[in-house]
Amino acid sequence: MSDSAPSPARAWLGFAVAIVAVFALGLLTASVMERRVEAQIRTPLVQINAYESDNGKWAVNWPREHASWKKTLESTSETKHGGAKPRDLLAETPANVILFAGYAFSVDYNQARGHMHAVEDVEKTGRDISTKPATCWTCKSPDVPRLMAEMGPAAFYASKAKDLHTEIQHPIGCLDCHDPDTMALRISRPALVEAWASQGKDIRQASHQEMRSLVCAQCHVEYYFKKEPKNYLTFPWSEGMKIEDMEKYYDANGHVDWVHPISKTPIVKMQHPDYEVYSQGIHAYRNVSCADCHMPYKTEGGAKFTDHHIQSPLNNIQNSCAVCHRWGEAEIRGRVTAIQDKVAEGRHRAELALAQVHFDALACIQAGATDEELKPVRDLIRRSQMRWDYVAANNGMGFHAPQECQRILAAALDQAQQARVLALRLLATRGVTAPVAYPDYSSKEKAQALIQDIAAGKAPRLIP
Amino acid sequence: MSDSAPSPARAWLGFAVAIVAVFALGLLTASVMERRVEAQIRTPLVQINAYESDNGKWAVNWPREHASWKKTLESTSETKHGGAKPRDLLAETPANVILFAGYAFSVDYNQARGHMHAVEDVEKTGRDISTKPATCWTCKSPDVPRLMAEMGPAAFYASKAKDLHTEIQHPIGCLDCHDPDTMALRISRPALVEAWASQGKDIRQASHQEMRSLVCAQCHVEYYFKKEPKNYLTFPWSEGMKIEDMEKYYDANGHVDWVHPISKTPIVKMQHPDYEVYSQGIHAYRNVSCADCHMPYKTEGGAKFTDHHIQSPLNNIQNSCAVCHRWGEAEIRGRVTAIQDKVAEGRHRAELALAQVHFDALACIQAGATDEELKPVRDLIRRSQMRWDYVAANNGMGFHAPQECQRILAAALDQAQQARVLALRLLATRGVTAPVAYPDYSSKEKAQALIQDIAAGKAPRLIP
Repeated sequence: MSDSAPSPARAWLGFAVAIVAVFALGLLTASVMERRVEAQIRTPLVQINAYESDNGKWAVNWPREHASWKKTLESTSETKHGGAKPRDLLAETPANVILFAGYAFSVDYNQARGHMHAVEDVEKTGRDISTKPATCWTCKSPDVPRLMAEMGPAAFYASKAKDLHTEIQHPIGCLDCHDPDTMALRISRPALVEAWASQGKDIRQASHQEMRSLVCAQCHVEYYFKKEPKNYLTFPWSEGMKIEDMEKYYDANGHVDWVHPISKTPIVKMQHPDYEVYSQGIHAYRNVSCADCHMPYKTEGGAKFTDHHIQSPLNNIQNSCAVCHRWGEAEIRGRVTAIQDKVAEGRHRAELALAQVHFDALACIQAGATDEELKPVRDLIRRSQMRWDYVAANNGMGFHAPQECQRILAAALDQAQQARVLALRLLATRGVTAPVAYPDYSSKEKAQALIQDIAAGKAPRLIP
Repeated sequence: MSDSAPSPARAWLGFAVAIVAVFALGLLTASVMERRVEAQIRTPLVQINAYESDNGKWAVNWPREHASWKKTLESTSETKHGGAKPRDLLAETPANVILFAGYAFSVDYNQARGHMHAVEDVEKTGRDISTKPATCWTCKSPDVPRLMAEMGPAAFYASKAKDLHTEIQHPIGCLDCHDPDTMALRISRPALVEAWASQGKDIRQASHQEMRSLVCAQCHVEYYFKKEPKNYLTFPWSEGMKIEDMEKYYDANGHVDWVHPISKTPIVKMQHPDYEVYSQGIHAYRNVSCADCHMPYKTEGGAKFTDHHIQSPLNNIQNSCAVCHRWGEAEIRGRVTAIQDKVAEGRHRAELALAQVHFDALACIQAGATDEELKPVRDLIRRSQMRWDYVAANNGMGFHAPQECQRILAAALDQAQQARVLALRLLATRGVTAPVAYPDYSSKEKAQALIQDIAAGKAPRLIP
């Protein structure tokens, strides 16, 4: 009897164990199902308006992406010098003040900060925006697509920045890159579409992987404001995206951003040709997109999503570089830094030669050289500064295409030095044989005081 | 009955099939065993003498390696211009004639050919070897270890090349890199051992993978002949292998290879710092050895062996580059060429500036400038030419460390241009304001005629 039927107590125990086991299995199933739900493509909870510029509204549907985007309040570049304060590039390299004399960058040139600072940084900058065209807002806010739809791009560009200021409320966010209905990546600014068209290409044919770079290329490019239509935002891409292509473009249309007050050279300011430089590097060649490194995938629980905390990959090596390059973090950082340091050396050589030749040209003016005589000098300065700036202004300190950046910097250096040779010969023909007395621009403050003096017609005497 | 026992005819058929199958199995087994024998580490058939320099004798034991080594009779570098004829580097870049004026390289400077040509090319060269020290033989022949063992290295170096000529019979071969008893890689020349010692390192501690580069580094390096002990072959490595390290070394010991006849600058000739440049590149960083790319593994039947046809990997992409870089051949070639072209652009810029500044200095001399006045000009020329040559003289057209080569070329360009600025100011103080009348060196022949005139005291007048 005892072998074939359990005692009532043992039967109840077995029943209890079975109950607990079934309950635990239920919990596990629920947990697994929950993770599957997280991993599913989400059905939006609320409908987003076609021109919704308030990034917080999108957060209801996309809380993880929005939360990561909010981290762009933090510094986005690797801060070599530590701290959350953005680097003061003029203090770090006072020669920048000389090279940008007469242009807003000589007044204030801080390390770029995160997208959430876009509007605020325009308002707070030491540069004066009261006289700027509305074109300057183009890349700052998701309020721009609405305004452009209402006004048309040409009227938008032709407006004054201060007149549209009250409409510009939100910093770079969701609507700039996404279609609110499908969340598909979308080009929201006309300039990039037009630049592709100028190369005979239709941007609507771009693949999803290309779009993961092209949404960035709406802003991270070299651009200028056309005179006609008034202040029309234009990328000089019709000849191509290499520096020589852009030089050819600007040679043909004669665009000048400003006339340098020291050497009186007409200068083309290169903005931040990030996409152009990236396009010439090995990562682009291997079809790695901007987002792959700057917005790598992230998981929270069972959910995998694109990290919208756009930043230097060096702040997030394990999720960016290390996905392909299976090395240690210190090793990856060391390789990147070694590459950047080599580019920096070339950049500093070009920078010094350029600063000197601006003064050499001023010395020629002081010695009575004519504009006609100075023409070949200024032509070389213009070409040299365009090249130096193509590399210096783009983010990544040359990392996006190191060999191409080094090639360009060597050309910039060569042209600046050739200009010096011409200037010195010009001085000699005017009887000046003493070395040019280069003024002291060894700090940001000294350099800024110096260019203010020059602007006020009180240039120091550089020749005996 | 018919179900349980076969007919006699069917039984014989079954027996015949079994016989054939067993026979085929025997053949297969024999074939498999044969391939296994091929793949085994071979037991030498004959004993090789300790100083056996006749490469043919080694062929008895190592027929495949020897047969591939014999292919070094063919051109070893990628011949951009096609054909088996080695490239004439002076014809390709006549500025080389100017830069090497007064030195043997200005007379004859052909593309390096394969190891089998080593002795023959010394005999056939347009350069005169009758006055050369025996040190020149060090890297040419496996007869050298025997001679050094007999004479001692110092006495070998102190001899005259022509006095040892009859002893130098065989071109670079087996004994140069291998121990004849074990075939282990072995350093046979003292200079590399001593160079390691100068860095406080013991080369006997090198790993097998390091040895796959170090046997090459016995010769493919920058070297010079010390005065004391007489013509003692020495690598300037005690400060390191970067160009700045070597510059520091030569600054300290004051070594001069020759005084340039145009500018009267004391010049340090960089030989072929292949190993030094390679050491600073990404392949060395990833522990890829010289042999991995230039002597990749090869199979013949079941035998896998090291291909001793040492050549440009571009001639053998599928077995070299493509082992790690799984791309198409055209793509790999395109990437390599793109890198080399960028280095070449920097090289040509430095080359032109250097050629010009040699003439600028000559113009200063013609204008009556003193050696004291020309000292800073010549100092910059010396440093510039050292850098240009560090890159130009090394094989691979910068590919072994592209970013480092571009960095060095930018420095060379900068220094040459700075020297030009100083020279032009010097001319100005002497009342010369006209451009320096650079002579025509646009072809090898014109350039060689020009430097012969200058050597004969018939330099063209470069200033009015």
